[in-house]
Amino acid sequence: MEIIAGGVTAAKGFEAAAAEAGIKYKDRKDMALVYSQAPCAAAGTFTTNVVKAAPVKWDQEIVYHKEGARAVVINSGIANACTGAEGYGYCQETAAAAAQALGIPEDSVLVASTGVIGMQLPIQRIVEGVGLLAAGKTDTEEAGLEAAKAIMTTDTRPKYAAARFQAGGKTVTVGGMCKGSGMIHPNMCTMLSFVTTDAAITKELLQKALSEDVQDTYNMVSVDGDTSTNDTVLLLANGMAENPLIDREDENYLAFKEALHHVNTELAKKIAGDGEGATCLFEVKVEGAASKADAVALSKSVITSSLTKAAIYGHDANWGRILCALGYAGVSFDPEKVDLYFESAAGKLKIIQDGVSTGYSEEEATKILSQEHVTVTADMKMGDAHATAWGCDLTHEYVNINADYRS
Amino acid sequence: MEIIAGGVTAAKGFEAAAAEAGIKYKDRKDMALVYSQAPCAAAGTFTTNVVKAAPVKWDQEIVYHKEGARAVVINSGIANACTGAEGYGYCQETAAAAAQALGIPEDSVLVASTGVIGMQLPIQRIVEGVGLLAAGKTDTEEAGLEAAKAIMTTDTRPKYAAARFQAGGKTVTVGGMCKGSGMIHPNMCTMLSFVTTDAAITKELLQKALSEDVQDTYNMVSVDGDTSTNDTVLLLANGMAENPLIDREDENYLAFKEALHHVNTELAKKIAGDGEGATCLFEVKVEGAASKADAVALSKSVITSSLTKAAIYGHDANWGRILCALGYAGVSFDPEKVDLYFESAAGKLKIIQDGVSTGYSEEEATKILSQEHVTVTADMKMGDAHATAWGCDLTHEYVNINADYRS
Repeated sequence: MEIIAGGVTAAKGFEAAAAEAGIKYKDRKDMALVYSQAPCAAAGTFTTNVVKAAPVKWDQEIVYHKEGARAVVINSGIANACTGAEGYGYCQETAAAAAQALGIPEDSVLVASTGVIGMQLPIQRIVEGVGLLAAGKTDTEEAGLEAAKAIMTTDTRPKYAAARFQAGGKTVTVGGMCKGSGMIHPNMCTMLSFVTTDAAITKELLQKALSEDVQDTYNMVSVDGDTSTNDTVLLLANGMAENPLIDREDENYLAFKEALHHVNTELAKKIAGDGEGATCLFEVKVEGAASKADAVALSKSVITSSLTKAAIYGHDANWGRILCALGYAGVSFDPEKVDLYFESAAGKLKIIQDGVSTGYSEEEATKILSQEHVTVTADMKMGDAHATAWGCDLTHEYVNINADYRS
Repeated sequence: MEIIAGGVTAAKGFEAAAAEAGIKYKDRKDMALVYSQAPCAAAGTFTTNVVKAAPVKWDQEIVYHKEGARAVVINSGIANACTGAEGYGYCQETAAAAAQALGIPEDSVLVASTGVIGMQLPIQRIVEGVGLLAAGKTDTEEAGLEAAKAIMTTDTRPKYAAARFQAGGKTVTVGGMCKGSGMIHPNMCTMLSFVTTDAAITKELLQKALSEDVQDTYNMVSVDGDTSTNDTVLLLANGMAENPLIDREDENYLAFKEALHHVNTELAKKIAGDGEGATCLFEVKVEGAASKADAVALSKSVITSSLTKAAIYGHDANWGRILCALGYAGVSFDPEKVDLYFESAAGKLKIIQDGVSTGYSEEEATKILSQEHVTVTADMKMGDAHATAWGCDLTHEYVNINADYRS
């Protein structure tokens, strides 16, 4: 596998566009299109929230029951969640407008929305935006970047990644973009992520690869513990790499999964590191757990602890909060066995040995915690299962953003 | 039942004291004593965190296996958690010092600590503090108040409550004090709470009354989702009211439970309203749930949502976040049936009807949300179960406090 530049247009036959539709933000693009020159196998994972946004319901219908997806139309600013039958109707109107402008079937158009919950979409502006998108789409890397920018809400930077590998003498590429900064605590999948590939692969294996991979990537991210109403990951495969069709779990499937995992991991980490108000990507590795489920629960418990997140913001080696968060994860372990390490570009330090302080240097710990990417490793010494979760620090800026997000 | 002034010294035969031991804070009292003139039946509920502080282990031994509790010695500043065998030894040394100074058995002395995790207690100062406490104890209301102040950490105000009722021609009193502001997400019970009563009641019924009542009081409070290593509620009954012994679930038991419930509810709400950095007590009532467990899960999900808490801080009627938090509570319901109300001293407003906005006035909503006590009521229309949870808003000051609590 080779890591390459680019995002959603990196794979062959995928085009993108961005447009300014004036939905809620001023002077910025707020709609994006992902378009495939050939019909795609589509896979998706969606929020487990009981309150599902209208676009989630629309996309589930298409991913589960239709063939040959061709396009995704995305808007930022309004989430089209808690909008009842009217909101669902706007999904259909958006798809119909895209179908007409692009000359493709209405049921090949996926839609996605992100932003404020409870407001209705200004559908006339959306329809006009779809026209601009259809007219402007190209297969350039620049177009993929512009699309990644257009889907941002409180994100501070666009998020995209790509990788490629060889299969049957052909180059197969996987690329994607995502957005997500607040209301990030995915369960089944995360905010909005769009991954494209030119791989020839069956719909069944495409969904299997995606469903498995989100467990170790998007589902291991938490910014604030709030599982969104709109969480959606879409994976489109148009087969234009002309590789031998991947229809069983052979080496080509594994190579595809590796590339997909790279893209999903990069996108997931970018969401965590760009969490609302975050100054740092906070990574928690749990090792030596009795089971994978234990490792996941333990790492996520630390990553979601408000007290720990605030301590990370303060560059404070307040390890007691970490041990406390491990303790209420609902997992059985012996607190007097746990070892804990802090690690970053500034070094690695053992903080706890067998549940009590090693008498480490606070100065050195603060230096390690003052980096942009901080890793805590907990060795539970209960078995050999492990997991990694990603989050961010809890800052004044998080409160600023969320005390008055709507205005 | 009659609500009265006072706290831990309100009941007959209970004395209290506070002292400055210089454990961690400067120029303030940091140790407290609760003392009973007669041996008590003792009940307790303790943290479910796997990582239990040394005083929790000490108190569990005494509450579960000993008779005739006489005193509780409490310190603030250091939690004596994650301190290994050395920390447990300090519990015994503290109890031994109190036993000698008060002329009571060592195994009648309960201990409790709150503050930084991972540091060892300065045991010499603790022992000296115990001497000051024993010399200074009195049964005045003032002494109860001073004790409530001495156990504060990031609390901004002391918390105490009392009530009394008649049983068999005798006046029986229940009074208590507690502390708690951060690391508050009780599971079985909350931070430190000490409730005293002069009721004559069997140890078995005392524990039953407490265990049942914490479910609806302390366990319904969350400040930050972090379940502490030290959570402890102790309930001491010395029988000095001379009421007919409560040894079955008769009307006197019910009257006792009512008074206990009042004291516990008041103390729990005081913890929520004085959450770290809080500007407001945030109350969430769920009605019409299919079961009590559903109602509890739904109300706690809203009370712990960082996004909702930040919106409350901003006086922002961002109801989508509330519906979202209901949606990820792990409870099945129909989002298109839910009604939602905002209520405070400034009025009551229906925000959502059947899952969509009522078109309420944002100005009126902001006025309601700008009070010190804000209530959200969600009617799920799925059954007739209900629950109330208490939390607070998420503020800049919470981040200030926790980014650098240790220094």
